[in-house]
Amino acid sequence: MNINKNYDNLEQSYLFSTVAKKVNEFSLKFPDKKIIRLGIGDVTLPLCKSVVAAMHKAVDEMGVQATFRGYGPEQGYDFLREAVAKYYSKKNINLDLDEIFISDGAKSDLGNILDLFDVNNTVLVPDPVYPVYVDTNVMAGRKIIFINANSENKFLPLPDKDVKADIIYLCSPNNPTGAVYNKSQLKEWVDYAKNQNAVLLFDSAYECFISDDSLPRSIYEIEGAKDCAIEFCSLSKTAGFTGTRCGYTIVPKNLDKLNKMWLRRQTTKFNGVPYIVQRAAEAVFSDEGQIEIKENINYYMENAKIISDTLDKLNIWHVGGKHSPYIWLKCPNDMSSWEFFDFLLNEIQVVGTPGCGFGNNGEGYFRLTSFGSKENTLEAMNRLEKVNVKEHMV
Amino acid sequence: MNINKNYDNLEQSYLFSTVAKKVNEFSLKFPDKKIIRLGIGDVTLPLCKSVVAAMHKAVDEMGVQATFRGYGPEQGYDFLREAVAKYYSKKNINLDLDEIFISDGAKSDLGNILDLFDVNNTVLVPDPVYPVYVDTNVMAGRKIIFINANSENKFLPLPDKDVKADIIYLCSPNNPTGAVYNKSQLKEWVDYAKNQNAVLLFDSAYECFISDDSLPRSIYEIEGAKDCAIEFCSLSKTAGFTGTRCGYTIVPKNLDKLNKMWLRRQTTKFNGVPYIVQRAAEAVFSDEGQIEIKENINYYMENAKIISDTLDKLNIWHVGGKHSPYIWLKCPNDMSSWEFFDFLLNEIQVVGTPGCGFGNNGEGYFRLTSFGSKENTLEAMNRLEKVNVKEHMV
Repeated sequence: MNINKNYDNLEQSYLFSTVAKKVNEFSLKFPDKKIIRLGIGDVTLPLCKSVVAAMHKAVDEMGVQATFRGYGPEQGYDFLREAVAKYYSKKNINLDLDEIFISDGAKSDLGNILDLFDVNNTVLVPDPVYPVYVDTNVMAGRKIIFINANSENKFLPLPDKDVKADIIYLCSPNNPTGAVYNKSQLKEWVDYAKNQNAVLLFDSAYECFISDDSLPRSIYEIEGAKDCAIEFCSLSKTAGFTGTRCGYTIVPKNLDKLNKMWLRRQTTKFNGVPYIVQRAAEAVFSDEGQIEIKENINYYMENAKIISDTLDKLNIWHVGGKHSPYIWLKCPNDMSSWEFFDFLLNEIQVVGTPGCGFGNNGEGYFRLTSFGSKENTLEAMNRLEKVNVKEHMV
Repeated sequence: MNINKNYDNLEQSYLFSTVAKKVNEFSLKFPDKKIIRLGIGDVTLPLCKSVVAAMHKAVDEMGVQATFRGYGPEQGYDFLREAVAKYYSKKNINLDLDEIFISDGAKSDLGNILDLFDVNNTVLVPDPVYPVYVDTNVMAGRKIIFINANSENKFLPLPDKDVKADIIYLCSPNNPTGAVYNKSQLKEWVDYAKNQNAVLLFDSAYECFISDDSLPRSIYEIEGAKDCAIEFCSLSKTAGFTGTRCGYTIVPKNLDKLNKMWLRRQTTKFNGVPYIVQRAAEAVFSDEGQIEIKENINYYMENAKIISDTLDKLNIWHVGGKHSPYIWLKCPNDMSSWEFFDFLLNEIQVVGTPGCGFGNNGEGYFRLTSFGSKENTLEAMNRLEKVNVKEHMV
């Protein structure tokens, strides 16, 4: 039996294990110091009330023969696909139900969608990047090329017409940088993808953090996108579903062959999302649910503003934090990512994520997130203001 | 962009759509006739009480900040993996926690495990077969060879040492035939796999229907299996989880490389099973849960006995039905699968599944299942006894 040798080419990431190790060592040395974690990439607020109520109801249904549900459609129940379609229609995007596929999350679908493509494709990925885009293609043995996101383009790289690519990844609002493309920038990407006969894999997992109506929350707000783009979205950050697991993927019928292949892939290799979770997701899209999740998003965005305002005050260059839970900052005094990590941990006991863990262009940058509590975020920023960054540099 | 051309080699299955079409046409023509469905491949009894209680509790936890759960470990929470390990220990099988991977079901894992293997492998599949084994390998472009299951070997084929195979599928109790391997038969398969340096993919989704302690419920009851076999199991049929979605896959540490690769695959392309569902699954393994699911299994097995006893009385050759919810019968009077389907529908309004839909060797065979109600199963078998099969043949 021959194993898939491409797995040998995967790079081991020691980012989060090294973070944990350094924090543990510090805690043991200084047990009385209160550490504030602003590196969290996970939601912390509980599920909202209408979601909890919908789940209790669904659990009861599952316990009674007359309302029990066995196998559902692999691509999701109509009640949830209709709710997603209605959500898109508010953005003036019309979707047929068979363009909508319910899944257990964007991460699964972003990985599994690659089943539809030949090994012989060139993959274009921005650097810095959500590591899943890279690793899933390394596993399949595809050629990967990188496009530079950096301070010059404000971490929003635009296509280079001379570069040939077949599969293009974009994420806006971006993880890890929090940078958000505007419509004309995304139009450049759509035109580029169409000219190249490429498929654009658009990760919109953070769309709900956009508060400016002029900024696109879906790739399908861009003319021509239905001819080239697949969109991945998730309720993980929108509604605190990181431990509840529900997302949705849009494969437009203009991409007829891919739409049919994805249906075949999912009906063959997937058995759908739990009924209970689909009822929970339906509740997110209800009028009440939308009000409730908005409160949570506002809470996180206030934290983001606290961080962003403090960085402005301290003249620390950064992107994100306005339409994103992530704030991506340039480490002051030309510190490396790990130097700044050590500085924050040792001097003010604030933990973030070194940018170098997200790609070469992340070196010298640092990611903070707004998923902590307001109290901790305020305290962390107070500590940062008080410490004199320049003086503390070795 | 180049698509995966292997998808063009997938055969369209019209099995269940043709069944539905024929049943619809009959209903329109004879609206007063009561049709009994014994073709159901899905459970019908609701979730048991301790599972429902566990889910309500977990939903409440998710609605409160102090007990809310975000991302969990992709391979499953320890509380559930410990419950699975304890369940195996009752069969005298010792598993380390990192040999156990919680998933959203056996179908997903049976498909996704193929990520770990090169295209250049020969796949050995019994015929008739659960179509997922075939389709997932066609999608990847692997060479598939079939081994004949038929009345001569009682649908329990044994390995042919002259046949070279790299990836071997076995399912016992079998879907669709209900046939169950004994220990010495499985030992032949394990020895064969080890000699060939092949991996054995063992689907034990129906293990809980085995009531004879001398029959193996796990491949790891066979000496040497930990050196060559990966086992896939599911709570779908065990505990009525077809719409709740939870399974588990065992990748032994003796298969060190595959164990590490599967962990990497799952952490990269999967985000774990919902916390609520994992708590539900934990309840299945509790003492109360085990008593409750046993009642449901007994209910289905009584139906299976009703069917099996009637077929015995009518001298209709069959396998399964003793340690399986499936009964696989030879169509009387040398009818083809579809002829017998039409006969049952037209004469006694009983719907089953034509065996030809599961492979070439299924032609002339027919699958009935025990997932209907006891009343309907009894009535269907009364109707079958009354109709004179021989006389009604054209």
